[in-house]
Amino acid sequence: MKHFVDPPSGTQLLVFAKGEELMAGLASFARDQALAGAWVDIVGGAAAVTLGFFDPSAREYRWRRFEEPLEITGLHGNLSWVDGRPTWHVHGTFSRSDYSVLGGHVKECLIGLTGEVFLTSRGDRLTRVHDDETGLKLLSRP
Amino acid sequence: MKHFVDPPSGTQLLVFAKGEELMAGLASFARDQALAGAWVDIVGGAAAVTLGFFDPSAREYRWRRFEEPLEITGLHGNLSWVDGRPTWHVHGTFSRSDYSVLGGHVKECLIGLTGEVFLTSRGDRLTRVHDDETGLKLLSRP
Amino acid sequence: MKHFVDPPSGTQLLVFAKGEELMAGLASFARDQALAGAWVDIVGGAAAVTLGFFDPSAREYRWRRFEEPLEITGLHGNLSWVDGRPTWHVHGTFSRSDYSVLGGHVKECLIGLTGEVFLTSRGDRLTRVHDDETGLKLLSRP
Repeated sequence: MKHFVDPPSGTQLLVFAKGEELMAGLASFARDQALAGAWVDIVGGAAAVTLGFFDPSAREYRWRRFEEPLEITGLHGNLSWVDGRPTWHVHGTFSRSDYSVLGGHVKECLIGLTGEVFLTSRGDRLTRVHDDETGLKLLSRP
Repeated sequence: MKHFVDPPSGTQLLVFAKGEELMAGLASFARDQALAGAWVDIVGGAAAVTLGFFDPSAREYRWRRFEEPLEITGLHGNLSWVDGRPTWHVHGTFSRSDYSVLGGHVKECLIGLTGEVFLTSRGDRLTRVHDDETGLKLLSRP
Repeated sequence: MKHFVDPPSGTQLLVFAKGEELMAGLASFARDQALAGAWVDIVGGAAAVTLGFFDPSAREYRWRRFEEPLEITGLHGNLSWVDGRPTWHVHGTFSRSDYSVLGGHVKECLIGLTGEVFLTSRGDRLTRVHDDETGLKLLSRP
């Protein structure tokens, strides 16, 4: 993964290569750069994704793996730090060979062609705290 | 709804809670903070949404309400002021339990789990002016 | 197409009118304004789109034209310069009259109602270089 820092705007452009795992790469990048907070917007091409749907009655994610070429039509999300570890919360959509679209909570995304990430840094460090009502970890001040 | 202002980047992160109405909350926030202009990018989980499709021949929106758990896979849009009232124009996509995706113009979005809003402020105040050709209110300088 | 520059935030809002071609308009804008780099986020309404899906085995795009009213539910992408010409790489999703969603690599997008573009400038000029492994032009420093 290469990254292009732009001092005037304070944004970064990251370019992931074929075969790299996007979510793991974003976590490594946050750790290596000691990012406090960030928001990302991502396009590109994937070879496989693991998508989650949170079932509110079961209070847990249901996961499904899709192994096929997909265009990344828009992933979005933010960085927080939970127990000292970078946690990216990313949702988004992917288009298939027939131009129909899949989406969900993104757990894994294997880059198939390229992954172009527009990253806006934030100076504040957020965390996530367990919420009894939903069963999820929600954004909060540390 | 909680909000985390980040002075270095000039962006804000808003976190909506279960049971809050996203579009009404964004309008209240714009009024309370006296925001001039803004652009938002949103992820999270909804319990119900009202989506619009503008029918160009009928020159009006057709609305449909979806009442089911949905992942918010990407909502985007901007703030303008029409007759002194904050008006958010937000479009986006939602994924269902089978990972298929719905989308359209977002009129209402009841938060089911959480709503994470990345807001970039703009200093200019825009309005919307009725356009005879399309039948819509289009962005314009006041 | 009108544009509203916001000096405090460094962002621009472009508003395309019915009948304008979005991708050609973005290219003209980049040339006229001598933009170095940029990222866009777009909502609005289209009358027709040409979407691409890159077939990794054939190493080429397959294109399909959709001629129908569509809500632009989220387009994203970046500007680079290839052989002195502005090149926008934009992916995204569009919703149909039944609220189902199409997506892919966006080659053409004829505006049907309006096209609202949130543009963040970057000071760095990127280019694209042919990559033998994928058959695509990938983002790189000039």
